[in-house]
This record gives sequence, structure tokens and C-alpha cells, in this order.
Amino acid sequence: MEWKNFDQLESYGKLESLEPVDIKTAMAGENGAKRVEEYRVPMSNGMVYSFAAKNVDDKVLEVLQELADEAALTEKYAELYNGAVINTGEKRLVLHQLTRGQLGEDVIADGVNKREFYVSQQSRAAEFANKVHAGEVVNEAGEKFTTAVQIGIGGSDLGPRALYLSLENWAKVNNTLKMEAKFISNVDPDDALAVLSSIDIAHTIFVLVSKSGTTLETLTNESFVKNAIKNAGLDPSKHMVAVTSETSPLAGNPDYLDSFYMDDYIGGRYSSTSAVGGVILSLAFGPDVYARILKGAADEDALAKNTDIRQNSAMLDALIGVYERNFLGYESTAVLPYSQGLSRFPAHLQQLDMESNGKSVNRFGEEVSYATGPVIFGEPGTNGQHSFYQLLHQGTTIVPLQFVGFKNNQMGNDIPIQDTTSQQKLSANVAAQIMAFACGKDDENPNKYFAGGRPSSIIVGEQLAPESLGALLAHFENKVMFQGFVWNLNSFDQEGVQLGKVLAKKVLAKDTDGALTAYSELLGIF
Amino acid sequence: MEWKNFDQLESYGKLESLEPVDIKTAMAGENGAKRVEEYRVPMSNGMVYSFAAKNVDDKVLEVLQELADEAALTEKYAELYNGAVINTGEKRLVLHQLTRGQLGEDVIADGVNKREFYVSQQSRAAEFANKVHAGEVVNEAGEKFTTAVQIGIGGSDLGPRALYLSLENWAKVNNTLKMEAKFISNVDPDDALAVLSSIDIAHTIFVLVSKSGTTLETLTNESFVKNAIKNAGLDPSKHMVAVTSETSPLAGNPDYLDSFYMDDYIGGRYSSTSAVGGVILSLAFGPDVYARILKGAADEDALAKNTDIRQNSAMLDALIGVYERNFLGYESTAVLPYSQGLSRFPAHLQQLDMESNGKSVNRFGEEVSYATGPVIFGEPGTNGQHSFYQLLHQGTTIVPLQFVGFKNNQMGNDIPIQDTTSQQKLSANVAAQIMAFACGKDDENPNKYFAGGRPSSIIVGEQLAPESLGALLAHFENKVMFQGFVWNLNSFDQEGVQLGKVLAKKVLAKDTDGALTAYSELLGIF
Repeated sequence: MEWKNFDQLESYGKLESLEPVDIKTAMAGENGAKRVEEYRVPMSNGMVYSFAAKNVDDKVLEVLQELADEAALTEKYAELYNGAVINTGEKRLVLHQLTRGQLGEDVIADGVNKREFYVSQQSRAAEFANKVHAGEVVNEAGEKFTTAVQIGIGGSDLGPRALYLSLENWAKVNNTLKMEAKFISNVDPDDALAVLSSIDIAHTIFVLVSKSGTTLETLTNESFVKNAIKNAGLDPSKHMVAVTSETSPLAGNPDYLDSFYMDDYIGGRYSSTSAVGGVILSLAFGPDVYARILKGAADEDALAKNTDIRQNSAMLDALIGVYERNFLGYESTAVLPYSQGLSRFPAHLQQLDMESNGKSVNRFGEEVSYATGPVIFGEPGTNGQHSFYQLLHQGTTIVPLQFVGFKNNQMGNDIPIQDTTSQQKLSANVAAQIMAFACGKDDENPNKYFAGGRPSSIIVGEQLAPESLGALLAHFENKVMFQGFVWNLNSFDQEGVQLGKVLAKKVLAKDTDGALTAYSELLGIF
Repeated sequence: MEWKNFDQLESYGKLESLEPVDIKTAMAGENGAKRVEEYRVPMSNGMVYSFAAKNVDDKVLEVLQELADEAALTEKYAELYNGAVINTGEKRLVLHQLTRGQLGEDVIADGVNKREFYVSQQSRAAEFANKVHAGEVVNEAGEKFTTAVQIGIGGSDLGPRALYLSLENWAKVNNTLKMEAKFISNVDPDDALAVLSSIDIAHTIFVLVSKSGTTLETLTNESFVKNAIKNAGLDPSKHMVAVTSETSPLAGNPDYLDSFYMDDYIGGRYSSTSAVGGVILSLAFGPDVYARILKGAADEDALAKNTDIRQNSAMLDALIGVYERNFLGYESTAVLPYSQGLSRFPAHLQQLDMESNGKSVNRFGEEVSYATGPVIFGEPGTNGQHSFYQLLHQGTTIVPLQFVGFKNNQMGNDIPIQDTTSQQKLSANVAAQIMAFACGKDDENPNKYFAGGRPSSIIVGEQLAPESLGALLAHFENKVMFQGFVWNLNSFDQEGVQLGKVLAKKVLAKDTDGALTAYSELLGIF
């Protein structure tokens, strides 16, 4: 497999010389309707990726297909899921897709079949969750646990939290919310204290998540929580399980009720479908619902093998994003889900994308001379419409938009008010926004003038449910992966988070000088 | 008063020709320590704005002072608080500072003294809250209300919600959480349904907030909620108050227990210190705590009158931001509070900043030829460190950083773990991050190389408490205002949100054609 820098590819030059598409013209009139009909890619589980309002036409798509072929994107994907050392910096395999399906050859590493390993951990988590729900694993007083609290940070927090919030209300109305879940992440003691003050510790099971077993924030919060458990006259080892790697100090440790394993081939931000998400989500929703999330993700992973960009939504989404970033000069991307359940999904995607592709060196450690990962931010619509959309519509900066919408709400019980339901109003708003951004509006009053030409895509699903949620998760994971391939990055390490850790340790050891001492004094640390 | 475009000012040219400061060099060694000592501005209520790690030196500061003087920033501020028509597009006064203090002359409008009007509404809200807390205003069964739910969107939601979350845990430990508050904003029916399913409607008072009384989402959610109240066999008019303008259909309407007023001179995103925030926060925390928030904001407003940038943190923060945006080419800014209580403060600032200054025409409606408001995003540290900080440290895009930290946590009860408390760890992390971003690190392994040179500022306070929170709120409001003055924008209208509303109405009326019809079909709206 050849790994070349993006600007060494022939298609790079072709993209550079393309005439940009004028969205405003393209989306007007019947031609616009035709684009909406044609410029869509089927996804799994009844979902569709629509890219009609992007700066592309058949000519651009042709070159993007050439880029996909020339950069051998699906072949690189195959290398990845077949067990090559894709994480070059840390010399690791990258196997998160294997947590939800077998896409290619058996991957044998550390002497085991990795798919079987991940499945076995899922089965163990399922068995454990079933025992908790059945009252077979109980507290010291023989009573059932009612609440599960995840202690983790970064990938051990954002993904599982986003998925939990995405399905919490769906689970309530579908009678499958087995336990309420909460999350402690920040080393700010107020985070743990607030969660602890909101739960009944005696009926709570804590899920401690740290791959290395050495994450400062997580171990600090573990001690914090154990202290609270002891203060309640209880035994911490009867209230906590660990999710970690088999080689960590937390593994098989009698301080925990049980331990569940992932390994070094699952990056934190890609770990929602491993035991990192599996234990808490199986406890919260039951193993069956969790399995449905995995199925949705597996379906989407399978579609990502398609070499035709018109049949591979993740790859096309990735390529359009690259075109916007490198040739149209757009520096950030907003993720705008029209579904309250997805309230924290943008925060997960922010980590997924910015931590994966926010890099300046290629997979060989050589500096690249083109822009890489964009800034990602977002909030649910319609809330954002009454907030930062002003800049998106009329600001001096163009921000590409990634909408997500569903035909049905999660909780049913919708009522018509002035002839339309809330769900119809919600969907009408996202349709309206896409067109307002694309086509703008002329006005004699320049204050009311909308230039248009602001690109967006939308993923539309039937309902935010376990399968569609899993599919959505995998779509974005695969999008980010494909973009990393184009930019020739290692999307699976995160060396940029290390320096801060080292310096924080110095401060805590009072081993500082210069401005670090001065800031420590300003902050009154000692 | 002369209002000129930024690029018509002499100081614009001077800024353009300045040699950029190399943060990496400037912040190294003892010079860095000296900068941290010297490059700080005192704020009110024991807070400090530190800008040592920004791309400035005495020469740059001198030109920024010239810009402040030439653009007459404090004089424009005085015009604003003395009642000039600063909101030129809508021909309105801009009086949110008057909700918390009298900064200059009496402002008489609509035949009344506006400061007196705002104070009278605060007194009415205080009186009402006291009656609710004392059990003088009760439900149909004569029982006390225990929960308050705000129904509003945009400025009627983000600011009050951010402030509530900022003080919820502080209030718990200080025994001043009078009622739990919740918020309904999104037209997605799942938002209202989730809140309704989590409360005891019989003991809940709803605060309906819409200045115009015509906001689609808010009126829809009102109907939704009223339906639920009726289904519970209760009388909606006994469970709801309105916050609106005196001319709205909601004013003095017998459908509500009471109504409280703001006016057209309070923009939504600047309305937290008006009745929009006052009613819900007085109910939640009691009027005394709310008054302390106002005091903190008033203190900061007074400091913003200072013509010396070294004594006016909001103005200096604004000017450095302008320098970064227009001359260093930085397109976005991250807001990173090291305090879990501020978890939704970045979302409020995102609206405040992007909706105010995300404009392409000046206050006279003429297109400007320079960049205006940046993209704003952020999450609390240390969480962000394990997420998107990778891009901030090693990405190809430089993002200026706005840190906020406190010396003490809110809930007390901190414990030493491995010799340091969680609060010390939290503060050590923010100190470490500032230095990591500023100075970077050389490394033979290019993957572990940090270029540094990434600018940040930090606001440090003693504790996140009502006064410091109010001060923080006003600091950013005034920063955004000063930036709007420099860019010669009208920061107080939001025409960019209108087009989407108009098109959404067309969809709901089935009055569509072209792509709008096609999207409506894709989304299954009818």
C-alpha cells in the first residue's frame, strides 16, 4: 500500500483547478429539486445522506471519485480492518470496527482472534448487566442497584454519554430503561460532588473506565467516589466495576466487583462500541438495545467498503469535507442535529474529529503543507437558530453545515398546534434552513440581505433509535478515518494531549520556574 | 459621535504594519514570569484578566490604546448607556446595562425612567418569588410550588440556563436553592416531553418567556405544556407566569398568574439581567442571590468606562480579539472554563458573540471589507483536554483560547489524593495548558513536537459565586459590545435569523416549490 501526501496526488491538482460550484444558482428552481432527488446516498437502517446543497456537481464528484481511487481509500480501510499497523506512531492495530462486525479476514493479535475477544467482552458485559437487572448482583443489603455512574474522561465519557442521552427518552417510552445512568468526568471536584449528591449511593454501581488505569482525572474521581462510598458505611469493592486493558493495574483487581476489557487497538474516541460504552449502556438499556446499536454501526461499516462514492456516504462526506477544507478554505464545520436526543452528539464528534485529524505531521512524522482537520462545534436545532446561526447566515466567514434530522420524534405523544405537530415544525425548520443557507435572499435593505452560497448536507433517518444511532456513530467514525487517509495522517494517536499532562505534574510537584510559577501563583495553587 | 469603518482608522494601518509578537520567545524564562506579573488587568470582585500569553507587547498595546481612543470606544459606550439609538437597524436604544446600574444620565423613554422601570420589574419578581417561597402563592391544592420551568429559546434560554447551572451546586451547599429549575427550549417535542416526564406538574410553576409573545417554538411549547397541565386535571392559568414586553399579547393576560416585563431595549442575548433571567433565577435562588449577580455585573460595567485599556479588561480583551481576527487571521476562539459549573457558559457566549457580531454590513448597512465576529465554541476543562485540545495544540489552525479559572471550588468538600486536592489538580492543569500552548516543546520525534505560539488569556477569580458570575457575564457582554464598535457593526439586531423563519412558515403552509418541496418530502413533513 502506498501512502502519499495529499498534495502529491494527481487529483489534488485537478481539485485545485476546478471551477467552484455556485450553490445559490445550482439550488434555485427546478434544478435544485432535481439535485435533492439525485444527490443523495442511501445509508443503512432507512437513512439517507443528502449532499445537494454542497459545492459539488457531476464534474466535482468525478474528481472526488478519482481522488478516492487514487488514494486507495477503501483499500486502506481494508488494511485497517484486516489488522495492519495503521496507528503508525504507537505501532498499533486499529480495530474498533471489529467490536461490531467481521469485515474481512480474521485478525489474530496477542495470540487471540480479536473479533472473538471483543464479542466475549460484550457477552460478559451482557451477562453482568442481566444479573444486575435480575437482582443476582446486588448491594450489601441484598437490594437491587438502580443507578449506574460512569467515571471516565475524554473517549471514556463523551461517546458513551452522547449515546446514553440519545436513547434515554426513547428507552423510557419503550420500557427499556433498566437503570438511570450518570457520568463523572471532570477533575473539578464539583463534578463528582454534584453527581454524588444527586444519587442514592447505596443503590449505585460505578463503572470506572481507564484503558491504561493511570488517567489522573479518572483515578482522582475514583478515590473521590470511594471516599463517599466509605462515608456512607459501604464497601467500595461491592459498588464498582472496572473497564480497562488486561495489562492495567485495574484488571482482575479484587477492589472491583468485576472487570471488562478493551485493548490498545481501540482508541478512546472510537471506544463507544467496545466495553467502554458496552458496560454502561448494557446496564442502562439492557444488552439487547446495546446489540442493536452495534448492529447499526456494523451495517454502516459494511457500506463503507463500497468503492463508489455514490454508494458510500461516509467516504463521500469525507471527500466533500476535504474539498471544502483544502480548496474552498473553510476552516470549521458545524454539526446541527434536529433532535434533542442528540444534544451531546456534537461534543462527541468534536473529540472524534478534532482529536483524530487535528495534526500537522503525516503518518511518517513529516510536516504537511496543507490544512488538515477542521474545528467542529454544534448545538441542536432549533435552539441554534435562535443563537449562533446569525453568523452562519450573515457573518464574514463561511461555515459548512452538517445537519441531521428524523421523520419521527422519539417519545410519541406529539400534538398538533395550529394545524401542525411539533415534529413537523422541527422538520420544516431544518428544510427551511438548508434553503436559506443555500439560496439566501435579495433585499433592498442590506441588513436583510442574505448572500446564500453556504453549503450544507443532511442525514435523514426515520427515528433516532438504537440502530440509526449506531449507524450515525459509524458514519462519522468512518468519515473521519477516510479524511485521515486523504490527508495521510495517523488519525489514531493523540500526542498533542501529552505536554499539558507533563507540565501539570510539574506544577503539582512544585517543580516549576518562569511563567509556570507565575501562573501557579496567580491561580493560588499552593 | 463619528462612526467610521475600522479600516478607515489610522490605527488600522498601524496595526497592519506591526511586527507580530512571538509568544514562544516572549513567554520563555524570566521574561515570561515578568509578563505574567505585568500583563494583567484588575477586574471587580477579586477577579483578574491576564493576557500575558497573547501576541502583544508594549508596542502593540500602545497601538491598541490608540485604536481605543481613535474609535472613541468609551464615548460610544457612554452614548449607549445614556440612551442613544445604538441599535440603528431596529432604531432602538440598548439598555441592558441599566438593568443592573445607573452608569450615566437618566434615560427617559416611552415616558418613563428606564432604570426605574427595570428596578420595578426586579422588585415585582422578587416579591413574587418571596411569595412563592413563603407559600403565599400556591397551587390549586394550597401546596407550595417546588420546581420552576422556564419556557423560552435563544436568549430567553441560554443565558438564564447557563447562570442557573453556574450556581445550582453553589446554592445547594449554601442552603439557598429555593426551587429546582428546568428549561424547555427546542420545538422538538422530545424536549418538552422529557422535562414534563421528570417533574411533578402539580408543584411546578412555568415561566413563559417571549418578548414579542410570538416566538413559534415558545408558543408551541406553551401549548404543549398547557395540554399536559390540563391532562393532569389542573388549571394552566394557576401554573404559569409570563415574561414579555408590555405591548405583547401575553402582557396582563388572565391566562397567567402574573406577568413581568422587559422592553425592546433589551436584546434577547443581553437579557439575563432583565426579567428574562430575573424571574426564574429569583425563584430558584431567591431574590438576594439574584441581586448579587446584578451587583457583580454592575461593578464590571463601571470598570468598562475606563479609557485606559490597562484598567478596562473588557475593552482590552475586545481589542486583542480584534487584532487576532483581523491581523493574525485567527477565525475562531475557544472558551475554556476550568469550572464544571460553567458547563453551559460557552453556549451562552457562543450566542452572545456570534449573534452580535456575525455580520457583514456596518451599522449603516454598508458591506464591510474586513473580517468581523469569530466562531465561538468551548467545553469545560479538564474535559476538553482529553478531547479537542489535540487540534488546538498540534493542528494546522491556530485557535485563540479564553480560559477561566477559580482558586476555590464551589461545593467545598475537596480531598487530597496523592498530596494534592482536586481543585489543585484542576488549576495545575490550566496553568500547564497555558504554558504548553504558549511555549510548546521541541522533540526529536516530530509527532511529539509542539510548535507553541498559541495565544491564550485567562480570567482568574476566587470562586464561582453570584458576584463573580455577574462580573463574568458583563465582561463578555462588554467585550462583544466594544468589538462591535471597532468593527462599526450594529451588534444589537439579528436579521440573519429571519429568513429561516419565513421559509419554515412556507413549508408549514405547504407553500413551497423547487428544492424546498424536495427537502420537505425527504424529511417526510407531510
